Amino acid sequence: MDFDEFREFGHASIEFLINYLSGIRERDVLPTTTPYAVINQLPKEIPEQPEHWREVLKDLENIILPGLTHWQSPYFNAFYPSSSSAGSIIGELLIAGIGVLGFSWICSPACTELEVVVMDWLAKFLKLPAHFLHASEGPGGGVIQGSASEAVLVAVLAAREQAVVSYRESHPEVSESEVRGRLVAYSSDQSNSCIEKAGVLAAIPIRLLPAGEDFVLRGETLKQAIEEDVAAGKIPVICVATLGTTGTCAYDDVESLSAVCEEFKVWLHVDAAYAGGAFALDECSDLRKGLDRVDSLNFNLHKFMLVNFDCSAMWLRDANKVVDSFNVDRIYLKHKHEGQSQIPDFRHWQIPLGRRFRALKVWITFRTLGAEGLRNHVRKHIELAKQFEQLVVKDSRFEMVAPRALGLVCFRPKGDNEITTQLLQRLMDRKKIYMVKAEHAGRQFLRFVVCGMDSKASDIDFAWEEIESQLTDLQREQSLVIRKAGNVADLTQHFQIHLTNENTTLEKYQ
Amino acid sequence: MDFDEFREFGHASIEFLINYLSGIRERDVLPTTTPYAVINQLPKEIPEQPEHWREVLKDLENIILPGLTHWQSPYFNAFYPSSSSAGSIIGELLIAGIGVLGFSWICSPACTELEVVVMDWLAKFLKLPAHFLHASEGPGGGVIQGSASEAVLVAVLAAREQAVVSYRESHPEVSESEVRGRLVAYSSDQSNSCIEKAGVLAAIPIRLLPAGEDFVLRGETLKQAIEEDVAAGKIPVICVATLGTTGTCAYDDVESLSAVCEEFKVWLHVDAAYAGGAFALDECSDLRKGLDRVDSLNFNLHKFMLVNFDCSAMWLRDANKVVDSFNVDRIYLKHKHEGQSQIPDFRHWQIPLGRRFRALKVWITFRTLGAEGLRNHVRKHIELAKQFEQLVVKDSRFEMVAPRALGLVCFRPKGDNEITTQLLQRLMDRKKIYMVKAEHAGRQFLRFVVCGMDSKASDIDFAWEEIESQLTDLQREQSLVIRKAGNVADLTQHFQIHLTNENTTLEKYQ
Repeated sequence: MDFDEFREFGHASIEFLINYLSGIRERDVLPTTTPYAVINQLPKEIPEQPEHWREVLKDLENIILPGLTHWQSPYFNAFYPSSSSAGSIIGELLIAGIGVLGFSWICSPACTELEVVVMDWLAKFLKLPAHFLHASEGPGGGVIQGSASEAVLVAVLAAREQAVVSYRESHPEVSESEVRGRLVAYSSDQSNSCIEKAGVLAAIPIRLLPAGEDFVLRGETLKQAIEEDVAAGKIPVICVATLGTTGTCAYDDVESLSAVCEEFKVWLHVDAAYAGGAFALDECSDLRKGLDRVDSLNFNLHKFMLVNFDCSAMWLRDANKVVDSFNVDRIYLKHKHEGQSQIPDFRHWQIPLGRRFRALKVWITFRTLGAEGLRNHVRKHIELAKQFEQLVVKDSRFEMVAPRALGLVCFRPKGDNEITTQLLQRLMDRKKIYMVKAEHAGRQFLRFVVCGMDSKASDIDFAWEEIESQLTDLQREQSLVIRKAGNVADLTQHFQIHLTNENTTLEKYQ
Repeated sequence: MDFDEFREFGHASIEFLINYLSGIRERDVLPTTTPYAVINQLPKEIPEQPEHWREVLKDLENIILPGLTHWQSPYFNAFYPSSSSAGSIIGELLIAGIGVLGFSWICSPACTELEVVVMDWLAKFLKLPAHFLHASEGPGGGVIQGSASEAVLVAVLAAREQAVVSYRESHPEVSESEVRGRLVAYSSDQSNSCIEKAGVLAAIPIRLLPAGEDFVLRGETLKQAIEEDVAAGKIPVICVATLGTTGTCAYDDVESLSAVCEEFKVWLHVDAAYAGGAFALDECSDLRKGLDRVDSLNFNLHKFMLVNFDCSAMWLRDANKVVDSFNVDRIYLKHKHEGQSQIPDFRHWQIPLGRRFRALKVWITFRTLGAEGLRNHVRKHIELAKQFEQLVVKDSRFEMVAPRALGLVCFRPKGDNEITTQLLQRLMDRKKIYMVKAEHAGRQFLRFVVCGMDSKASDIDFAWEEIESQLTDLQREQSLVIRKAGNVADLTQHFQIHLTNENTTLEKYQ
C-alpha cells in the first residue's frame, strides 16, 4: 500500500462525504432512474490496469449518486430510519482499517471485550433487566448481530433445538423427526416479514395470529392458539412479539404474552427493532413492561442510536441455550482461555463464524454523542412526528389510521384505497419525499417516518406541503376526469345528472 | 452533525490508520493481555455528556490496540487471510457515509445495480461458467453474502426446500414432516465447521464423509454414502464440496462429485472460500474443473481479493430456487418495477432483509488495483508460500504434512504431537508470529498461511527464523528436562544408564 495515496484518497473521500451530506436536501430523495441505467453506464469487465482514485470518485458522483435513494436525507420517510452519525461513519473507517475479526476471544481479545462493554452500556442505557448484562452473575448477555432478521432467526433456531431436546427428554418414545414435524411457533399478523421468513428457514410453521383492532397481539389470543395446537398434538416452540410493528409501530402486550409463554414453557422473543430506542426514556417506561420475563430481545442501533447499519443488538437471558445449539468446534478454533472465564466466544451466539469489529463504531458513537445526546435524538424524532401528526389532524381531507407512535405517523386521505395509491404514486413520481404504504384489514395507508441523520422542523413542513399540495392537485385532476366523463355523458340521457355531480365535486375540492 | 468536526475527526483517523498500518511490524502480532484486561480499563456506563473524538482516538491507541490480534500484520499466519487494501478501507468509509440499504431495487437502485456489475466482473475474472453471470440469459447470477457461513447456509436451505417440494411431487402420499425427517446432506470430514453448523441450523444431518489419505473427497465415496442412504429410505439433499479446505487447502474432486450429484439429483455446492481466488490464474485452471456442473459456489473476497471482511461472493446457477424458497413479501416492500426486469431484489437471495452497499467497496478495490493487480496479489501469496516451503524442506527436523497449496504450508516438527503442541505454545507465548494447528488422522500439525495486507519475502524469513529457533530452544530445554530426570535418577540404581542417555541427547541437539 502506498500510504501517500491512501492519505490523499482518504482525505478526498472525507470531503466527498461532507459535500454529499451537507447538500443532501438539494437532491431529490428518489433517483430519476430506470432499471439498467447504472449497469449500462459501467464497463463489462474489471479494468486490466489500476485506475486513479480520482476517476472512481468522479464516477461515484456522476453515475452512482444519481442512482441512489438517499437514506440519510430528511426527505426519506419510508420504512424506518437507518441513521448514521459522524462517529459511526468514522467508526466504519477505523474498523475496516484495523481489519480484525472477532469470532473467538484469542483471535482479537479487545474486539470481544469491547462488545461485552458496549452491550452492557446499552442494556443499562435502555434500562433492561439486570440478567441481560454480561456483568451480572448468570448466563445472560448481549451480542451484536448483523440485522434484526438474524437476531430473530437465532432465537427461533435456539428455541427449536431447546424444544426438541426438552420434549424428547419427557417423551423418549417419540422420534426426533416426529418431534420436529410437530413444532409450531407464533407471532402477530402485524409482525415483520423477517419473522415469517425465520419460520421458513427454520422449517417451523409460524402462525401469524390476528392482532386486535388496535394492532396489538395479546396473551389471550396466544393462549387460545397454543391450547388448540397442544390439543392437536403440536409442540409450541416460540412466540415472537413485536414492540413497534413495521406497519403502525404497535406494541404487543408483552406482559400478558409472557404469562402465557411461562405457563406453556414457550420461548418469548421480543423484536423491538424500532421501539427499543425508547426504552431509554422515562416517559416511555410503559414500553418496558414485561421485559423481565422474556427470553431474548433485539433492537436495531441504526434505527434510533445513530450507529449505521449493520448493527443489531440482541440480548439473551440464557446464552447457553444458543451456544449449546450452535457449537460445532474445530481444533483450529480452540484457545487456552476457552471456558476459563465468562468472556464469550461470540461465534457460538450467531449464525456466521466470521464477525466484524462492530463494537468499535458503537463505542465511538456512544462516546461522541453521550447518553444525553442519544436520548435527545429519540426525543427529537418523537417531537417531529408530533408536529407532522398535528398537520394531518388539522386537514380534514386526511384521517389518522393508528395513534402516532414514536417517530411514525400512519394516515391516509379519506376515501377508498385508490386515492391513497394514486397520491403515493404521484409523490413517488415527483421524488421529493419517499414514503411507503401499508395495509390493515383491507385499508391501505401511508406511513410517514421521521428518518435521516439530522431532520428538522422545517423538513416536516416541507414534507407536509408536498403531500397536501399533491392531494389538492390529484383531486383537481380527478374532478377534470369526471368533467371529461361528463362530456362523454353529453351524448347520453344522463347529461344533467353528471354535470351536477361534477360541479359538486369541483366545489368541494377546489 | 458538525461538519468541521467530522472533517477533523476523519482526517485524524486517516492519519491514525497510516500510523497503525505502516508500523504494524513493530507490534507483536498477538496481544499481551488476559481476559478482562480491556473490560476493566473501561467505564461501566455510557458517558452522560459527549466526549471529544481526541479522547476516543487516545483510548483506541492506548487501550484497544494493545488488546488486538493484528490481522493485517504479515506476522499473522493463522486461519486464512482477511486482507484489506486502501480502496476497500476507503470504500467502507464511503459506504457508511452514503448510508443506503439495498434490499430491493427501488430502495436504492444503484446499490443493487452495482452489485450486479461487480458480481459479473468477478465471475468473468475468475473464469466461471457463463450461466453464473447476470448478463447471461437464464436464472443465474451472483450476490454478495456477509460470510461463507451464510452462503453455505443459503445453499443448504434452498436445496432443502427444493428437495421437499420435489420429493412430495413424486410421493404425494408421504407427509411433509416425514419427508423433512428423512433428509440427509453430505460434505467431507475436512470441510469447514460452518458446513456442519449449516446442517445443525437447517435441521438436516450432514454426513461428514471420510476424505482420502490426500484429504480429497471423491465421487465414489459420495456415491456409496448416497446409495446406502437411499436404500435406508433417506432423501439426499445437497453435497457441499470444498476447494481449499481449512486444514490443508485440499481440493475436493468436483468433477466426480458432480457426476454423482447429477445421477441422484442432489444439489452440489462448492465452498471455494479460500481457493476461489486462484480460479483467475491460468496456471491454476485445473481448480475450475467441474464448476460448469455445480449449482452454487462461494468465494470470500477478503481471502484473496483485498476486499475487507465482510464480503462473500456467491453464485447461483438458478437463483429462482433460492427466491422461491425464501420469498415472504409485504406490501411495504413492493415497488413498481418488481418482476418487470431481470434485476434482482437481492433480499430474496439471502437470509436477512437489510443489506449494506458492499458492492461499493468491491468496485473501488477492483478499479484501484486492476485485474492485473489482483492476479499479482494471489501470485505473490503463492510465491511466498513456496519460499516458506523450501525453508521447511531444507530443515530435516521438520516434515511436510500435505503438499503446499496456494498460500498455505502444512508442516510439523518430526516426532509426536506433543512437540507440535509445545512449539506452538512457545510461539504463542512469544507473540511474534501467529499460527494455528490442525489435526488429521490423529496427527497434529502447524498451518503457516501467508496473510496480511502487504507481506514480503523478508517477512517469511522472519517467521521461519522464529519457528526454527524456537524449536532449537525447545529441544535444548527438553534435553535439560531429561538431564534433570537423570539427576533424580542419581538416587536410583539406573544411574549409569541415565547419564549415558542424557549425554546422547545433549550431543544430538546442541
